[in-house]
Amino acid sequence: MAKQKLVYFFGGGKTEGNATMKDLLGGKGSNLAEMTNVGVPVPPGFTISTEVCKAFNDNNRKYPKELDDQLQSNLTKLEKLMGKKLGDDKDPLLVSVRSGAAVSMPGMMDTVLNLGLNDISVEGLASKSGNERFAWDAYRRFIQMFGNVAMGLDLDVFEDILADLKAKKKVDDDTDLTGSDLKELVGLYKKAYKKAIKKDFPQDPMDQLRASIGAVFGSWNNDKAVKYRKLNDIQNLIGTAVNVQSMVYGNFGDTSGTGVCFSRDPSTGKKVFYGEFLMNAQGEDVVAGIRTPLKIDGLKKINKPAFDELVAIKNMLEKHYSDMQDMEFTIESEKLFILQTRNGKRTGAAAVKCAVDMVAEKMISKSEAVMRVSPDQLDQLFHPMIDPKFRKELTVLAKGLNASPGAASGQIVFSADDAEAWVKDGKKVLLVRKETSPEDIGGMDAAEGILTSTGGMTSHAAVVARGMGTPCVAGCKDVVVSGKVMSVAGKKYKEGSVITIDGTTGEVFAGEVKLINPKITKDLELFLGWADEIRLKAKRDGIKEKGFKVRTNADQPEDAKVARKLGAEGIGLCRTEHMFFEAEKLELFREMIVATDLEARKVALKKLLPMQKKDFVGIFKAMNGLPVTVRLLDPPLHEFLPNSAKDIKELAGKLGLKPAELQKKVESLHEMNPMLGHRGCRLGITYPEIYDMQVEAIMSAACEVAKKKVVVEPEIMIPLVGTAKELEILVENAKVVIAEVFKAKKMKVKHKIGTMIEIPRAALTAEKVAQHAEFFSFGTNDLTQMTYGYSRDDIGSFVGEYMDQGVLPKDPFQTLDAEGVGQLVEMAVSKGRSTRDNMKMGICGEHGGDPESIDFCYHAGLNYVSCSPYRVPIARLAAAQTVLKAAK
Amino acid sequence: MAKQKLVYFFGGGKTEGNATMKDLLGGKGSNLAEMTNVGVPVPPGFTISTEVCKAFNDNNRKYPKELDDQLQSNLTKLEKLMGKKLGDDKDPLLVSVRSGAAVSMPGMMDTVLNLGLNDISVEGLASKSGNERFAWDAYRRFIQMFGNVAMGLDLDVFEDILADLKAKKKVDDDTDLTGSDLKELVGLYKKAYKKAIKKDFPQDPMDQLRASIGAVFGSWNNDKAVKYRKLNDIQNLIGTAVNVQSMVYGNFGDTSGTGVCFSRDPSTGKKVFYGEFLMNAQGEDVVAGIRTPLKIDGLKKINKPAFDELVAIKNMLEKHYSDMQDMEFTIESEKLFILQTRNGKRTGAAAVKCAVDMVAEKMISKSEAVMRVSPDQLDQLFHPMIDPKFRKELTVLAKGLNASPGAASGQIVFSADDAEAWVKDGKKVLLVRKETSPEDIGGMDAAEGILTSTGGMTSHAAVVARGMGTPCVAGCKDVVVSGKVMSVAGKKYKEGSVITIDGTTGEVFAGEVKLINPKITKDLELFLGWADEIRLKAKRDGIKEKGFKVRTNADQPEDAKVARKLGAEGIGLCRTEHMFFEAEKLELFREMIVATDLEARKVALKKLLPMQKKDFVGIFKAMNGLPVTVRLLDPPLHEFLPNSAKDIKELAGKLGLKPAELQKKVESLHEMNPMLGHRGCRLGITYPEIYDMQVEAIMSAACEVAKKKVVVEPEIMIPLVGTAKELEILVENAKVVIAEVFKAKKMKVKHKIGTMIEIPRAALTAEKVAQHAEFFSFGTNDLTQMTYGYSRDDIGSFVGEYMDQGVLPKDPFQTLDAEGVGQLVEMAVSKGRSTRDNMKMGICGEHGGDPESIDFCYHAGLNYVSCSPYRVPIARLAAAQTVLKAAK
Repeated sequence: MAKQKLVYFFGGGKTEGNATMKDLLGGKGSNLAEMTNVGVPVPPGFTISTEVCKAFNDNNRKYPKELDDQLQSNLTKLEKLMGKKLGDDKDPLLVSVRSGAAVSMPGMMDTVLNLGLNDISVEGLASKSGNERFAWDAYRRFIQMFGNVAMGLDLDVFEDILADLKAKKKVDDDTDLTGSDLKELVGLYKKAYKKAIKKDFPQDPMDQLRASIGAVFGSWNNDKAVKYRKLNDIQNLIGTAVNVQSMVYGNFGDTSGTGVCFSRDPSTGKKVFYGEFLMNAQGEDVVAGIRTPLKIDGLKKINKPAFDELVAIKNMLEKHYSDMQDMEFTIESEKLFILQTRNGKRTGAAAVKCAVDMVAEKMISKSEAVMRVSPDQLDQLFHPMIDPKFRKELTVLAKGLNASPGAASGQIVFSADDAEAWVKDGKKVLLVRKETSPEDIGGMDAAEGILTSTGGMTSHAAVVARGMGTPCVAGCKDVVVSGKVMSVAGKKYKEGSVITIDGTTGEVFAGEVKLINPKITKDLELFLGWADEIRLKAKRDGIKEKGFKVRTNADQPEDAKVARKLGAEGIGLCRTEHMFFEAEKLELFREMIVATDLEARKVALKKLLPMQKKDFVGIFKAMNGLPVTVRLLDPPLHEFLPNSAKDIKELAGKLGLKPAELQKKVESLHEMNPMLGHRGCRLGITYPEIYDMQVEAIMSAACEVAKKKVVVEPEIMIPLVGTAKELEILVENAKVVIAEVFKAKKMKVKHKIGTMIEIPRAALTAEKVAQHAEFFSFGTNDLTQMTYGYSRDDIGSFVGEYMDQGVLPKDPFQTLDAEGVGQLVEMAVSKGRSTRDNMKMGICGEHGGDPESIDFCYHAGLNYVSCSPYRVPIARLAAAQTVLKAAK
Repeated sequence: MAKQKLVYFFGGGKTEGNATMKDLLGGKGSNLAEMTNVGVPVPPGFTISTEVCKAFNDNNRKYPKELDDQLQSNLTKLEKLMGKKLGDDKDPLLVSVRSGAAVSMPGMMDTVLNLGLNDISVEGLASKSGNERFAWDAYRRFIQMFGNVAMGLDLDVFEDILADLKAKKKVDDDTDLTGSDLKELVGLYKKAYKKAIKKDFPQDPMDQLRASIGAVFGSWNNDKAVKYRKLNDIQNLIGTAVNVQSMVYGNFGDTSGTGVCFSRDPSTGKKVFYGEFLMNAQGEDVVAGIRTPLKIDGLKKINKPAFDELVAIKNMLEKHYSDMQDMEFTIESEKLFILQTRNGKRTGAAAVKCAVDMVAEKMISKSEAVMRVSPDQLDQLFHPMIDPKFRKELTVLAKGLNASPGAASGQIVFSADDAEAWVKDGKKVLLVRKETSPEDIGGMDAAEGILTSTGGMTSHAAVVARGMGTPCVAGCKDVVVSGKVMSVAGKKYKEGSVITIDGTTGEVFAGEVKLINPKITKDLELFLGWADEIRLKAKRDGIKEKGFKVRTNADQPEDAKVARKLGAEGIGLCRTEHMFFEAEKLELFREMIVATDLEARKVALKKLLPMQKKDFVGIFKAMNGLPVTVRLLDPPLHEFLPNSAKDIKELAGKLGLKPAELQKKVESLHEMNPMLGHRGCRLGITYPEIYDMQVEAIMSAACEVAKKKVVVEPEIMIPLVGTAKELEILVENAKVVIAEVFKAKKMKVKHKIGTMIEIPRAALTAEKVAQHAEFFSFGTNDLTQMTYGYSRDDIGSFVGEYMDQGVLPKDPFQTLDAEGVGQLVEMAVSKGRSTRDNMKMGICGEHGGDPESIDFCYHAGLNYVSCSPYRVPIARLAAAQTVLKAAK
């Protein structure tokens, strides 16, 4: 049997590994190998494979027999290559021992630096570097790290000694200790080590090495690493690799230095060399901000060969990885080393710019470009943001849910009416409420942003704000609203005070903050066009219609126009009830609700009809040529009536009723669980005249615009269906009305009648429901509520705990629960198509704008997703990425 | 090709049909044939098959060619047998033409009597009967019926003529018209007929016959018949048969008569000949109650041969049909004819008595006996009833839902406290409330019965009342409760007024009504023993445990004892929260809820622990040897706090809080949709200390009783699980507590930990949930709420309309919806057993006591059903019947 290879060398232009060997060598190890392969000057070393980790941990922390030989031979090779020896008294080789699993787990496992120092080699390092202080500091750090990592000594043991010494020397900072102080410290450290471990600090570098490797392998199973893997759902890894790499020092003297650079500007994406460095410094000095780093161009003057080499390397690496690179480098005694390269993190704008440029440069294909921008990055481009330059200076006042992205500043007001009034006076306001209700729509629309103290991601405020594209922080529990005052952490903010909210992060700040408005560039349009091309030609087995479309949820012509500009290919959900909340319509609608008999109800409805029709005319015109799904009345009637005694009295006056009568009506409509109450198609069955009016309004509007050459295709959608019979009755009713309209208008218009699938029972019996439905639209908000038994309005009291304890991996109202709710969707798709094989199906719940949910919808076989207007571009991108991933 | 046989003769001891030919001859036709076959003197005739009906209706109301020949030959045969001829001027044969489908559709289709009368034969009938008035009355009735049924004339045409004639003759009643008046009437009828039809009234009996047969066949498709079949789900019938039968008359003179008799007493079931008759009368006279009928024994004196023959026939028919017979007979001129026999309807008591006696008489097997009593009949035996003798005299004040069976009279009170106080003073009270809440338990228990004006079949009042076996009428909308007054239809009933409710029918009566208390007899015990034998030995494919068991839902030792006496084989649901509503516990529980930190909560829980333990000790003792499933806390915490300002103030005082503080707590716990809120295992996750206390109480109690030789097997049930993870966490927590109890008690007790399946998602992911559950119990109340999206508390506003329009065939909270909810149950059973193949599964929702749902549960593979104590016998019977039906 061939001896198993356990150790892989890299350095001197030759390696035994490459980028494809992540599982065996870990991310870091395979990347070091890859860089070495392509000629990048990486400090040489070798990687001990993940299989050793597994063997070590499985086998009671014993190494495989073969390891020691392979370790020894690789070390010898390294020493030969470097021309230095571990533990040498003149010019010792020093190495680092680092973890590196196939998936990055930053900070979770252990590292040992400066290994190879002992009482003899420290003198060699001192004389070679010409810096005694540097050498002894390195030695004392090594003892500390080794003692802690390899021997499990408490770091406090060392920190206490250091503190005592500083007191004795009367200095404040570590950096004030001299070389001889540090030499004294090393003595004290070794004494403490011996006291605790009952052995001298090991002087043999091989002993140091074996113990350190074992410690790193062992750290794979420490508590925080195990927890991190669990939380991040990292599975199927056998262990970490260990990288033993020769040390290089940027603080070796004035010809040494260290820095970070990007192959393109990570903020803008422009193709310029971007970076910072410091001479005679360690990597952490660049980050810490004690000294001001120099711009990367400055290196040209200090060390032109190194600069030129760096430029050549970044060009080569960018080409090699076909992506913008983020590199760490060190110059030790004039010689350049690359410590790390990775694909650089970037802003949304930069991501788009890079992707588009790289296609132009023929570095990547359009498909690759589409995969290069994450939907979240794209989202940044559609909302004002807090200028990152000022962000650091801000103190967070409170933090709530990031309910609708974008930032906004303004004067706070506490009622929707005030918001409208103040805005009319030319002020910029933020609406602050405990929670919002449908009556607040006007004020919400007027406000720059919305802040609520209760409610979740799918509360009224959150849903409406996202629909409007208005920034919103919801469920901000630290904010207490009382009258016209908002208190946060004991401080009071009166009406008119200025605050800023960031709906992208959920943060609230005092005062005004400078915002920047990202703009939609030509690059972005080009980029999204590529995404559209991909998703529109997607073909799936068993699904007749080609493509995967994106529609929008819009209730008003204005919203429809915005969404269309953002690329919506139709309306997936037009909620007719939002139309009723405008003052005039609301009054008539209330008249209809309090009517005591059918005739009175019909009178009120007749007055509403022309108004509803006008709304539809506007929407149909805005969506000329695209389908529009109109949902008939959904919420329970009591949502349209006031609750407070004052409001009831006022309304009673208007309607010519006694307040007591109206009070009684309001009470009679009260429900214990309105979510599960008398709403949706249940109203259509019990008050058929309401749906009749709505159907008449929709179809009359359609006929009128069709006469004016507008291409219109209304899809009438019946909500909350739980039984096929409900739909059968309501479809029959609708057909009668439609026939009457066509007869009166002497024309016909293409149209469909379908249903929401939002009740579990509808999904379970979808083959029967489909007998009466020409399309299905999944209302996954309600479907999630009922499948989990969670009220969106009440989930706040336990959802935090549920996420913390891992009961819910994600908020199921944000990302569709594929395991449970998804089963019902898949069932309904398959049962529905068993009845009508070419049935059009889409989703109109909030999930329609969530990339992970969009991915689910594609695989479940839906024809389109529908989301709020400002999510449309994100959905277009996410849909294209799903198509690309599925094609693999 | 052989000519198709379309007409089947019966009479003269010979027939061409029999009891098995229902599909072809209809129920009536096959029964007439069967009786003729066994020698019963049935008026002869013939049956035209259902195939003719189909051909007639399919073929534009044309008869098959062959029919006329067959009709003619059968008529000739009939005339020969009867020695009379249709249309004869001396002694004419008269026939009836009646419908009769395979399934009885009483009153839905048409009938023609006295066919064969014309201007000549009427004289023959007059002379033969010696009663001119009788003959002309028969003729005018025939014209009226024929005109209406066969020719579609409006009955009003004839009624108007009759009214005019009565006015002219100055008489009030039809019976005051003389023979010659009726002769005059016939003349007027014929004139009217001719005016409308433009033809003379047909004098040829064959014309009369053909038209009448066609009319009856045609009535198969009249509106009411079609609707009746739709409503009663009568499918797969091709049409009705038509029976042409010679008429016999009980009002032919003093030697004629008519009556109804039963082979056993239908009230008591005793084996005595029971019946009533009238001489010189028609069947309707016996029913109408104008003359007082004689007891059947009286016939012996009047016509001994006929009486003896009747006794012999009833004995023979009872034996032939192996069941108690309900017969109609007529004596025409001393000769006995049997017009109809069928299995007699009987009371519950009679059903049991008959079944037990017939087994003793070796008429039927035990299995047959078990099938002979319907669960509804059995239910009568467990509740006081309104004495049927007085029922007719009562006026119904209002009608609500029959929420909990049995009748009760008492003085009305309007609060639970008053109920308790009045009962302490020795009064009998009925508790009248808008709706009840958990705090009303004491008063509900004290009251004789409960009446609520709102709420459905599964409202709090209904569920609790059924559990207690207390009669309840719920959701009685006509009753308006305001302060201490109840108004019904404008009349006011003050506190202290006496009313009576019948929870079996939902009726409310003013004043006291005499009630009778059925008692549990030895016969019943014997009978239920047979049922138990059948269900306990039932075996099903793929289900390891034999038998189909019946458990009970009981929260208190007293309930448990009652249920055990009624045959419960364990407790399927012991709701721990009901225990908290006793005053002392409620106070401590509230202290726990308002506690602001964990420590304070634990202090309150520690005080509750011994009280909970005591409850469990009582229940375990009562159920010695049987399993007890205890559900941990389920309702949301706000259910335990008061709502009114007054109550809040009072409680705040007790708890040493400021009312405003408590008010704030109450508000913070308020939920929009409590049904979908922070309850069940969600409380267990967020406040683990509550479940820990409950588990400790259960297991400590179990250990204590086990030491006293009580055989105990607690099954700890975790409610409202929607994800496997919830259960995993809570089972782990429970195991820790159990281990501590066992350690402290130095012993172990057999136990299980399982879960409710009541959230759709739990059913969908049951294979994962089952990894942590040792049993499943289906909470089909909540499962129905979530699968349909119906709130039990709010469904009242539309469920009536839904049943009327056929959207819901039944109230899904009474009978489990097999089509939708049932799918989830079946899915969970199969997924659950895919993880644990011998997993015990049961149902503890209200459906556990509903026969149709029990049938579903058996086929779904559940091991037991659990229902309220007083439903246990009904469930035992229903379960046995299900097993018997499945075995077929």
